[in-house]
Amino acid sequence: MGADIGVTGLAVMGANLARNLARNGYTVALHNRTVGRTDALMNSYSSEGEFVRAESLSQLVESLERPRRVLVMVKAGTPVDAVIDELIPLLEEGDIVIDAGNSHYEETRRREAALRERGLHFVGVGVSGGEEGALNGPSIMPGGSKESYRTLGPMLEKIAADYHGEPCCAWVGTDGAGHFVKMVHNGIEYADMQVIGESYDLMRSLTGLEPGQQAKVFREWNTTDLASYLIEITSEVLEQEDELTGRPLVDVIVDAAGQKGTGRWTAISGMDVGSPVTTIAESVFARSISAQQQLRTVTNEVFPAGVNEAVTAEELYGSGDARQEFVEDIRKALYASKLVSYAQGFDMLTAAGEQYGWELDMRTIASLWRAGCIIRADLLDTIMKAYEAPAGERPANLLLAPEFTEAIHECLPAWRRVVAAAATYGVPAPVFSSSLAYYDSLRRDRLPASLTQGLRDYFGAHTYERVDKPGTFHTRWSGDRSETEV
Amino acid sequence: MGADIGVTGLAVMGANLARNLARNGYTVALHNRTVGRTDALMNSYSSEGEFVRAESLSQLVESLERPRRVLVMVKAGTPVDAVIDELIPLLEEGDIVIDAGNSHYEETRRREAALRERGLHFVGVGVSGGEEGALNGPSIMPGGSKESYRTLGPMLEKIAADYHGEPCCAWVGTDGAGHFVKMVHNGIEYADMQVIGESYDLMRSLTGLEPGQQAKVFREWNTTDLASYLIEITSEVLEQEDELTGRPLVDVIVDAAGQKGTGRWTAISGMDVGSPVTTIAESVFARSISAQQQLRTVTNEVFPAGVNEAVTAEELYGSGDARQEFVEDIRKALYASKLVSYAQGFDMLTAAGEQYGWELDMRTIASLWRAGCIIRADLLDTIMKAYEAPAGERPANLLLAPEFTEAIHECLPAWRRVVAAAATYGVPAPVFSSSLAYYDSLRRDRLPASLTQGLRDYFGAHTYERVDKPGTFHTRWSGDRSETEV
Repeated sequence: MGADIGVTGLAVMGANLARNLARNGYTVALHNRTVGRTDALMNSYSSEGEFVRAESLSQLVESLERPRRVLVMVKAGTPVDAVIDELIPLLEEGDIVIDAGNSHYEETRRREAALRERGLHFVGVGVSGGEEGALNGPSIMPGGSKESYRTLGPMLEKIAADYHGEPCCAWVGTDGAGHFVKMVHNGIEYADMQVIGESYDLMRSLTGLEPGQQAKVFREWNTTDLASYLIEITSEVLEQEDELTGRPLVDVIVDAAGQKGTGRWTAISGMDVGSPVTTIAESVFARSISAQQQLRTVTNEVFPAGVNEAVTAEELYGSGDARQEFVEDIRKALYASKLVSYAQGFDMLTAAGEQYGWELDMRTIASLWRAGCIIRADLLDTIMKAYEAPAGERPANLLLAPEFTEAIHECLPAWRRVVAAAATYGVPAPVFSSSLAYYDSLRRDRLPASLTQGLRDYFGAHTYERVDKPGTFHTRWSGDRSETEV
Repeated sequence: MGADIGVTGLAVMGANLARNLARNGYTVALHNRTVGRTDALMNSYSSEGEFVRAESLSQLVESLERPRRVLVMVKAGTPVDAVIDELIPLLEEGDIVIDAGNSHYEETRRREAALRERGLHFVGVGVSGGEEGALNGPSIMPGGSKESYRTLGPMLEKIAADYHGEPCCAWVGTDGAGHFVKMVHNGIEYADMQVIGESYDLMRSLTGLEPGQQAKVFREWNTTDLASYLIEITSEVLEQEDELTGRPLVDVIVDAAGQKGTGRWTAISGMDVGSPVTTIAESVFARSISAQQQLRTVTNEVFPAGVNEAVTAEELYGSGDARQEFVEDIRKALYASKLVSYAQGFDMLTAAGEQYGWELDMRTIASLWRAGCIIRADLLDTIMKAYEAPAGERPANLLLAPEFTEAIHECLPAWRRVVAAAATYGVPAPVFSSSLAYYDSLRRDRLPASLTQGLRDYFGAHTYERVDKPGTFHTRWSGDRSETEV
């Protein structure tokens, strides 16, 4: 009997997925460019399951049952192509090449098409949960052909995170769909973290609550409909004391956020599919701004404080009922903004599904994120319910699901107060305010876009449509200003 | 004597540039895929100057003085490549191919590199001003080699818009720099139009001023530091009455803004070069939202009004001093937001210049936009002044130029009031609020990005830096929570 699956690329993610597979009873063939890593893995973890040692890709392929399943876990980009090129001549029709790395979905689409032409399956798999998830159960979002999922799916479901007995793994759609869904997950993760940051900043600046006190607030919030992994670990991080200085760790960490690019990809893809993911874009930009440290230092010198600089947190919402009420306002603003960012994320999935011909099932996608990944949250159960309606009756936008319209109504006054306070007292809350503007734009009878169209017609003869009759029109602005149908 | 320049592609932009060249004393060889268009142009405008008729590209090339200058005015994308491919064998070392269409700068970079290898110059030229500008003097932003500008520049300067005796044309940088600068121009144009739209909407919703009344307000604003082409034509559009219904035209136009993609390109490039162009991205998204008409209709039914729906404009700022003051607040918010969008646009130019090795001169770029193009505005003179300082003393960001710090200080309280009112009363003002959040982020001592870094270290071991010593650190979150240097 040959091995059930081969893994090439045994850095930490590859090694952990291999161990996860072996622990679940699969025989796993191992290969790494430098064989030392293969041996190290086999020496340390051979008790966890069945491993087969391969010194070359051809040995790896030879050791596998058919159809062969080769999991490629090398760095995204040209290394993936290099391994694929080497694999192709070794494989036979029906074999499956799996890329569970952080590839861009367009690359996955390209590779899938190329391998399909040769009778091979190429499966781009989104994996979330980091190193620990890879070992103990990540959220898994596989794309590729439905056919490939028949043999590959059961294995992936077995190693995926478990949510009350359901695996956080399901086929999401053809070619690049898996990597696309994972990318949107990461975009939402950016927004989730940004709204937590804005809440923390507003609370600290306007109510004076210190990190240690806020840890308690976030812990309490974690018992409300905000309950989620990120809220939970926020309280852990906020209560952490720096051992060197005794100060809150969060005051010792440099306030320049890094990024690995997937949030940026999401915002760009949102633009490309015409979906207004304002919360994700603002979150990406907020990280860029934080990283412009030199500029920030100079700007802080020129504009040390905003208006109302004489007002202290103590005087604002610094104690008693005022504080308690404002903290609750922030909680509601956080929830509403978070809802908007999920609504935008799913709107983007819908738009992409249409554009790329994926049959994305939103309920399934929400289900995959309930465990194993960074954005796991109680909210996802509610999102699943929102998409449970039969096709045709599903909400066009998550904000319109009955479960959420009520929540929006309930949060709205607080949300407005918080955004107004942020603007008034100079605490930047780009996602709180952008998500509110999104909500207010969507619900509006008339937008000033009619003026935009008028201007575009004036300077560029771009024409416009009328509300009262079909057709395309132009006003002769530089002539007699009469209207003409074009 | 051969012709001074050849133009291939005689749709309206190509035809108008050709006529502009001929009117300025150049002999222009004309070519079009269908010769009928060439003949029509020659028949109608032969009195304007010297034209040479060419039935094929090779005839066109043969008719030209050396080094040959061929202006390609075909649709951006593959048609440009097709014409280039046909031209290459016809040309000789030192000849110049010019693309003055709406090509993406990355395409221009690719084409420039390919033609350079063959000893040819490829010049991507950004042209703004639409059809009328092309004929009477556009703003011209040429990229390509400095050498090519020596022979081509004088011609372009002659046909460019004239700003008090100075041509709105200058070499901006190598390869794709011209098209990049033009792209940023368009991104800023999106933001300019969006903040005008937000001003109009706020004024209408919160003070009750009707379009006709607002036309007067914008006309007055056009005598302040907001003076610009777009403000000027806003009053023209707002006072236009629909001949069919007698209603303001702006109420008859469908409120779904179109876009041709260059704003989107700008926002995406901002992401790519790591420059936070929030105002441009929000403007692009605002157009997308406006175009989601079906979704908007449903959402409007579910959420017909925001909080404070019982409050009418009349009760808010509907008359007397309150109205006058709020209108003035909006003017200041508009100016401050506009400043931010220019600051972001120039920040993006700076970042791109570094990334692509262009020696962009910000003062020159500002000067090119003073006439002929859509964003022409008095503000550009002030921006030029801001960049007049010797290198090393120029502001790192436009907001830091003395000319503008003062303006920001003056506008700030009004800006805050307007953003707060928009949030409170449910009028979407995405760019007003996003630009304020940008300002407040940049000037802030500490941003919550330190918490983001803490969270990233918690779930992904992404590490962090400390404010008090160099190095990269990680807290053993799932262990004893001690810190380790990595």
